[in-house]
Amino acid sequence: MTDAGRARFLKGHGTENDFVVLPDPDGSVWPEGRLSPAMVRRLCGRREGIGGDGVLRIVPSRYVPDAAAVLGADLERCAWFMDHRNADGSTAEMCGNGIRLFLYALVTEGLLDRAACEAGVLVGTRGGPRWVGATPDGEYWVDMGPARAFGEGKAVVSGQVFQGLAVSMGNPHLACLTDVDVDTLDLGGQPEFDPGLFPDGVNVELINTLPAGDADAHIRLRVHERGVGETRSCGTGACAAAYAALAAAGRDTGTVVVDVPGGRLSVRFEQGTTVLTGPAVIVATGVLGQEWPGS
Amino acid sequence: MTDAGRARFLKGHGTENDFVVLPDPDGSVWPEGRLSPAMVRRLCGRREGIGGDGVLRIVPSRYVPDAAAVLGADLERCAWFMDHRNADGSTAEMCGNGIRLFLYALVTEGLLDRAACEAGVLVGTRGGPRWVGATPDGEYWVDMGPARAFGEGKAVVSGQVFQGLAVSMGNPHLACLTDVDVDTLDLGGQPEFDPGLFPDGVNVELINTLPAGDADAHIRLRVHERGVGETRSCGTGACAAAYAALAAAGRDTGTVVVDVPGGRLSVRFEQGTTVLTGPAVIVATGVLGQEWPGS
Repeated sequence: MTDAGRARFLKGHGTENDFVVLPDPDGSVWPEGRLSPAMVRRLCGRREGIGGDGVLRIVPSRYVPDAAAVLGADLERCAWFMDHRNADGSTAEMCGNGIRLFLYALVTEGLLDRAACEAGVLVGTRGGPRWVGATPDGEYWVDMGPARAFGEGKAVVSGQVFQGLAVSMGNPHLACLTDVDVDTLDLGGQPEFDPGLFPDGVNVELINTLPAGDADAHIRLRVHERGVGETRSCGTGACAAAYAALAAAGRDTGTVVVDVPGGRLSVRFEQGTTVLTGPAVIVATGVLGQEWPGS
Repeated sequence: MTDAGRARFLKGHGTENDFVVLPDPDGSVWPEGRLSPAMVRRLCGRREGIGGDGVLRIVPSRYVPDAAAVLGADLERCAWFMDHRNADGSTAEMCGNGIRLFLYALVTEGLLDRAACEAGVLVGTRGGPRWVGATPDGEYWVDMGPARAFGEGKAVVSGQVFQGLAVSMGNPHLACLTDVDVDTLDLGGQPEFDPGLFPDGVNVELINTLPAGDADAHIRLRVHERGVGETRSCGTGACAAAYAALAAAGRDTGTVVVDVPGGRLSVRFEQGTTVLTGPAVIVATGVLGQEWPGS
């Protein structure tokens, strides 16, 4: 089998939130007509395709028709755009786990210099421009923007009532610190919540506090994502939970280690920013098989 | 990223029964210590790995320590061995969907001549030697051995009772022809069956008969696999269901078209053999990422 002309891909994950990454360095490999919703669904299909929670297309911002509207004056500063699609084929905005993998893929594909990556770069997303970078020890970070508390509420999960802090990370969260061992909970059902506080639904975090060690706090987390169910990791959920853990200690700055089912993240709060840091793993690189249309 | 020294893989499926295929043409890429149960589980992990129902290692039979015991005098005739592992890391015997993909991968990897493949070759498996081959129109076939009826029984699925024919394809099946539209059934639970007839459990097929067209019969099938649950396709289940459809028409030879949720198969019965034919799809080819131990 010759690989000539076949579309290249990477498969990888950030704390087991996994993606099919499609390098498209001059915008010609995956034009809109080819990267159709049906194609995205097939790429993400776990048996008929490569499998993933979504697709991340690596493309220069100037080749993305809708980039100017979301990036505004930052269009020229964002050399690269994370064209993120959900597994159902719809377009997506930002993903704190996906963007780490996106950045790692930019470096491994030779599209971004490792030193420039450690210095920090601005990447375009449908959620706006985002500062991202690499750490010296091989992890990746993303500035998730400010966290904002907007009240207190409760959720019913697995027949038990949990009190939590309502936190917005752009999307709504109810971050519930609890003494109940979160590993014992059944997150298979839909949590009950107050629709007055969360008219658009809510992501629910159930959080145990662990000994802090060298960090300012250390938590273990399970998350029920709005419209999805329990997931292995949720970037905004990690930030919201970390914020609630600091707030419980009367603080609004500091670093929190966050253990999610899919791995370990850390969240640093400083002067109105929230920096999420964690691993990115490239599981495989290759080309699509000859049965793919156009490959 | 350089690909030098990284282990090569293919991901593909037969009627959406999907596998990670590992070429190991001289037995040195995936020695036993490296292809450990833990490594197989990680390769098959759908978020942390490549994802698959199992692993198929392509290796010369002479490099497989336990091949002589299962192949006997046929060891020398089986140039290639399908070293099949389940997603849980255990060793597996035969798979009518996997072996088609195995054969396609042998050809695309340049390890087997296409013409030789169309003539038919003997491949080693832990279930014994198997005749397999390619059709002129790009599908693959495998001789699944004889079907044998051993009684009649019933199963309770989704609160309804279904009568069926007990058929052995090496493993036990209850093939139930029914007028109930199989697409309306809930196969989420464990079917009830007669443990006297099926002391080791049973695979249950629920079958609708369709207009035969050019074939001797045409059926649509859903299957509940023993120990697994509903699957997109089951090679032995397709054979057992096809056998039951022919038997209902008073025949024991002929060709049956079998639609499974994952695609279309055909089964030909002739002089004590059962030949299963269907597609094989290679979704992607590539190399493992640098995070894999030893890659």
